Amino acid sequence: MSKYHTVRNSALTFVLSVLVIHSAFLTSALAEEGMWTFDKPPLKQLKERYGFEPTREWLEHIRLSSVRFNDGGSGSFVSPHGLALTNHHVALGQLQKVSTAAKDYVKDGFYARTPAEELKCPDLELNVLVALEDVTARVQGAAKKGMSDEEALKARKAEMAAIEKQSTESTGLRSDVVTLYNGGEYWLYRYKKYTDIRLVFAPEQQIAFFGGDPDNFTYPRHDIDFALVRVYENDKPVENQHYLKWSAKGAAEGELVFVSGHPGSTDRQTPMVGLELQRDHLLPRAIKNRERRLAALRKYAAEGPEQSRQAQRPIFYLENTLKAFGGMYEGLKDPELISKKTTEENEFRRLVAGNAEWKRVYGSAWDEYATSTRNYLAQMKPYRYRRLTGSNLANLALQIVQYVAEVKKADGERLDGFHDAQLESTRFELLSPAPVYSGMEEALIANTLQEAVDQLGPNDPYVKGVLGGRSAAEVAKEAVAGTKLADPAFRKSLMDGGEPAVQASTDPLIALARRVDPFFREMHKWYEDKVESIEVSAGEKIGKARFAAFGKSAYPDATFTLRLSYGSVKGYPMNGTQAPPWTTFYGLYDRAYSFGLKDPYELPKRYLDGKNSLDLSTPLDFVSTCDIIGGNSGSPVVNRKGEFVGLIFDGNIESLVGDYVYSGEKNRAVAVHSLALIEVLRKLYDAGGLAGELTGKQ
Amino acid sequence: MSKYHTVRNSALTFVLSVLVIHSAFLTSALAEEGMWTFDKPPLKQLKERYGFEPTREWLEHIRLSSVRFNDGGSGSFVSPHGLALTNHHVALGQLQKVSTAAKDYVKDGFYARTPAEELKCPDLELNVLVALEDVTARVQGAAKKGMSDEEALKARKAEMAAIEKQSTESTGLRSDVVTLYNGGEYWLYRYKKYTDIRLVFAPEQQIAFFGGDPDNFTYPRHDIDFALVRVYENDKPVENQHYLKWSAKGAAEGELVFVSGHPGSTDRQTPMVGLELQRDHLLPRAIKNRERRLAALRKYAAEGPEQSRQAQRPIFYLENTLKAFGGMYEGLKDPELISKKTTEENEFRRLVAGNAEWKRVYGSAWDEYATSTRNYLAQMKPYRYRRLTGSNLANLALQIVQYVAEVKKADGERLDGFHDAQLESTRFELLSPAPVYSGMEEALIANTLQEAVDQLGPNDPYVKGVLGGRSAAEVAKEAVAGTKLADPAFRKSLMDGGEPAVQASTDPLIALARRVDPFFREMHKWYEDKVESIEVSAGEKIGKARFAAFGKSAYPDATFTLRLSYGSVKGYPMNGTQAPPWTTFYGLYDRAYSFGLKDPYELPKRYLDGKNSLDLSTPLDFVSTCDIIGGNSGSPVVNRKGEFVGLIFDGNIESLVGDYVYSGEKNRAVAVHSLALIEVLRKLYDAGGLAGELTGKQ
Repeated sequence: MSKYHTVRNSALTFVLSVLVIHSAFLTSALAEEGMWTFDKPPLKQLKERYGFEPTREWLEHIRLSSVRFNDGGSGSFVSPHGLALTNHHVALGQLQKVSTAAKDYVKDGFYARTPAEELKCPDLELNVLVALEDVTARVQGAAKKGMSDEEALKARKAEMAAIEKQSTESTGLRSDVVTLYNGGEYWLYRYKKYTDIRLVFAPEQQIAFFGGDPDNFTYPRHDIDFALVRVYENDKPVENQHYLKWSAKGAAEGELVFVSGHPGSTDRQTPMVGLELQRDHLLPRAIKNRERRLAALRKYAAEGPEQSRQAQRPIFYLENTLKAFGGMYEGLKDPELISKKTTEENEFRRLVAGNAEWKRVYGSAWDEYATSTRNYLAQMKPYRYRRLTGSNLANLALQIVQYVAEVKKADGERLDGFHDAQLESTRFELLSPAPVYSGMEEALIANTLQEAVDQLGPNDPYVKGVLGGRSAAEVAKEAVAGTKLADPAFRKSLMDGGEPAVQASTDPLIALARRVDPFFREMHKWYEDKVESIEVSAGEKIGKARFAAFGKSAYPDATFTLRLSYGSVKGYPMNGTQAPPWTTFYGLYDRAYSFGLKDPYELPKRYLDGKNSLDLSTPLDFVSTCDIIGGNSGSPVVNRKGEFVGLIFDGNIESLVGDYVYSGEKNRAVAVHSLALIEVLRKLYDAGGLAGELTGKQ
Repeated sequence: MSKYHTVRNSALTFVLSVLVIHSAFLTSALAEEGMWTFDKPPLKQLKERYGFEPTREWLEHIRLSSVRFNDGGSGSFVSPHGLALTNHHVALGQLQKVSTAAKDYVKDGFYARTPAEELKCPDLELNVLVALEDVTARVQGAAKKGMSDEEALKARKAEMAAIEKQSTESTGLRSDVVTLYNGGEYWLYRYKKYTDIRLVFAPEQQIAFFGGDPDNFTYPRHDIDFALVRVYENDKPVENQHYLKWSAKGAAEGELVFVSGHPGSTDRQTPMVGLELQRDHLLPRAIKNRERRLAALRKYAAEGPEQSRQAQRPIFYLENTLKAFGGMYEGLKDPELISKKTTEENEFRRLVAGNAEWKRVYGSAWDEYATSTRNYLAQMKPYRYRRLTGSNLANLALQIVQYVAEVKKADGERLDGFHDAQLESTRFELLSPAPVYSGMEEALIANTLQEAVDQLGPNDPYVKGVLGGRSAAEVAKEAVAGTKLADPAFRKSLMDGGEPAVQASTDPLIALARRVDPFFREMHKWYEDKVESIEVSAGEKIGKARFAAFGKSAYPDATFTLRLSYGSVKGYPMNGTQAPPWTTFYGLYDRAYSFGLKDPYELPKRYLDGKNSLDLSTPLDFVSTCDIIGGNSGSPVVNRKGEFVGLIFDGNIESLVGDYVYSGEKNRAVAVHSLALIEVLRKLYDAGGLAGELTGKQ
């Protein structure tokens, strides 16, 4: 499952950020399409198609049992004692961070048999959505008549920061204003935030990610992609009435199921001109960028076993992202998809043009949107390459440089991520005690600097200013060799010392970040003024035009906020035959032996030794028609009774195009079956206690 | 595996018969492409790519170990005592014919533990290719200068009949003149013929055809599609020095392997205008025709369990054919394929046009070919629908009516199938003691008559003449109710009685055949004169032009004659991941349980009861890059040592387009692994004796 989405308060820049404002909604929800917000669940469809009418309590229980993993995934509470379930690949970052060369929990797995053995995650924040409030009037109202697009954008952002600050101060809850329906609506989402998260269980990565990159995003599949953490507050496990009870049977074929999770982003309502920009520029460049970084990491990993261990996680994420991008790119090159999207847009525009009032108020939006993309193209290269990407350490340095400058400003004028309401989470990230792998960071910094040289040329002011005539490799080497930023206490001293401390610092990586910062700010300002402001204004018009033309019966594009999808357990036509509704443990062993147990199809020793103890006909993974996308990784699949029946970990290859369009015939969400988790916990991991906590039966 | 090909001496008419003369050869053999004749094996490729140089003895041994099953498949000798191995689906016709409502060997399987228990096949003829001789000069020379195309066709056919007759009389061998390279070459193939074939072993159809129509033509696959017969002569098993020794290990990944078998037909060198005819007319009509017949059979099968048993085999073949046609049709609609083929043809034609002599002699061929297809279209409907299709019984009737007329004529002037050299095989077919299912035949005759009404209209002379104003159902009912043709003795009496007996017969089905015959003959003559003669003449020019332009280094299109393919055991990219080189018994059980053991994924009882006795990691089916097509069903896969390593039973879905083009990347031949056969014989069927005969080890 793709993890290429990030939360709003992360300062990581992102390849598709030009399109962050593409939330939208569909004119007609087809089949079992839709990632629905909890304030507008698809009650009509559920009643008509399944005769199911969820109560307010049912919806609230599912919502409060759902957990956002803020490094890009989803999860759920599955015991009354704060046990939260997610994917191995979502927990992978934390697993890596608590591992060492001597204790490799990624490779060997991890199991805390007692509370004392649980390992604290260095920098994991979990969120539970406890309240939603419509703040559309306040945000839209901030942009006054007569303001330019640039002024309007500033006003909206300031208003959003003010709402968040006010809410944080009055409730103590994490408070995010979320843009929905292309700006047709703005909502305040309040989260209960947890930062004391402890690892309880993870299987070997080999079985969690069985089949590796080849089998990723495909089905039939045989992964046991799960991990368990326990959520603490005040040094005690959270005792939570809202958790999902474990289904004794799992889901049957044809059964109605739900996915409650945090889809990262979709582009289903992005105007055609935006999709063309993605197809012709953004995606090809993003693919090249990732391929280049992947090559740098593979080179580093080849230096030795410890290097290989360190690089394993970023390599996994990059391969995953590349496969996802590849599927999206294929989708955008499909003439049928383009023709379908074009027809839809043309019909919508004709409808708007046919009503004099709509035409006057919204008619210009598409041309304006096109202007923003034209503007973007004019400065695309400096915008994309005058920055450091891929290195966590360099990112920490740049954020510290920005932090000390931003916190001095009025709240509404700060860069995103540094508003008062966001500072706690940002500081939590910046002060993470997670280990820093210097060799790998050096390779990544050298790579991003050299990429700038290759893309911008040696005479670009950024290249000259940042490298000062030296080679990318030299600059990276010096910066990493001399920096003390690996130490969180040093980072804290700089942040506490404020601008004077940062300006005076002779730390070479801080010095590098100081050289990068003005270029970043210049391009950021250009982007806000010439691209984002126009896009937001145009997007809001398109969003409102949709409400006017089609009413408010559909769902907004995904925004890494909590959504409910529904569907049924169902195979699909595949490769000339049919994919089954589920796979079994027989299939796991088949796939392993049919490739001669060779990488990536080797099995952990316990799976070879213990296979006779398993009931091999137990369902392993299963598919449903639920509409999901990257970010849904770790989401629970629940039945009508609100019981846990499965754990989302992927979409099939046919779902990659789901960024742009949902195909009910072949789009499938792939989940680990609830029975499979209990089967391996009890029979292979001697983890009956844990299985008992999950099922309520020892 | 498609079974839609038929041998030359079968009088069954065939949807693609307009294109029977499409044998040809490729300008350059890509990858491991090619179905090579044994007189021109791909020695250069084998040496360059695999360092393998087969000896004359090696080739002869493989050839003489290969067996053609004349109802449309292939096989091989696998023991010194006449044991021949083929697919269950090739033996299915005979299995059905020896089954009864009480003893259903199709469903339950069959195993003769002693020679006495072996069951004689009612009408199975096997051929072994013992000699090949180039007769191009004689056949081409028969068409003299100044002859019209029609006269030339007659002259060629007469010469071919004369060559066959002469050869049969002088050698006692079955002798077929085969058209290769679009008529660029003609070869006399002499076969040792066997007609005393006895069933030895067949598993349950459920396991031979596990996964049914959905999994047919796909991979990964889990079928154990085999059957064993014993070949007798003079009431004793044939003791044969040429048989394939059983490999103790089977084939490894990447290993060079060969397929020796009888691919039915390909259209790789058919001119574009011929492919367009297929795409736009022949295939769509063939598909409708089969769908209609399938619906009629399903309706009949629904009448009861015995009806269902009777209809099982034709339903299987029709579903198989429809899936194959579907794949071919998709291929022909693929713009990439069409563009590739068009470019190739244009380049070839430019080359011919660039040489004054070639242009003069061959340059007109493509336009002539186009004329033949235009002519065909003008009378396509009466040609296709003024005939009885689908009913074996009606076919027997028509052939008897024709037999008595044809045998009176000079040999060279008879319809194909009735030449002196062919009469023995034809009589063997016509006098088959196989059971006739009257109810099913009535349904099929009613269907073909009604199809004629629907396609030609009530006023067509054929419809009027054959139905005489009554309904198709009435005519079919009366014909079947009153006929004695189910009795081979009655058939023999008519054939022995000659034209007077047939003319005087009051048998209502003979009467129906007599009414059909003149229409059939009229359309047949029209087809020969206006279509076939032009096509053969044009085809021969194209074939010669290829020899002139590219030399004689390639292989001809398939013609249900013995061919050698080579390749290696190799997975392939599939559905976003990779298909493994082989599957295992684990996969069989996975597929069964992942569909909840529901049809077509239920398992025979012995497979459920006996699964713990199996080594589930044993390879089950495997794929190789060998170039095969329908008709290759039952072909042995052999290694460099000439040992048996597998049993071809299918191509993957990506190979269906192989009728037109070979794709080395994804085209795969699917075979049962030699180890799988021994595993089930020994452990599930208590057939150690048979396994011992195969492996040479008790």
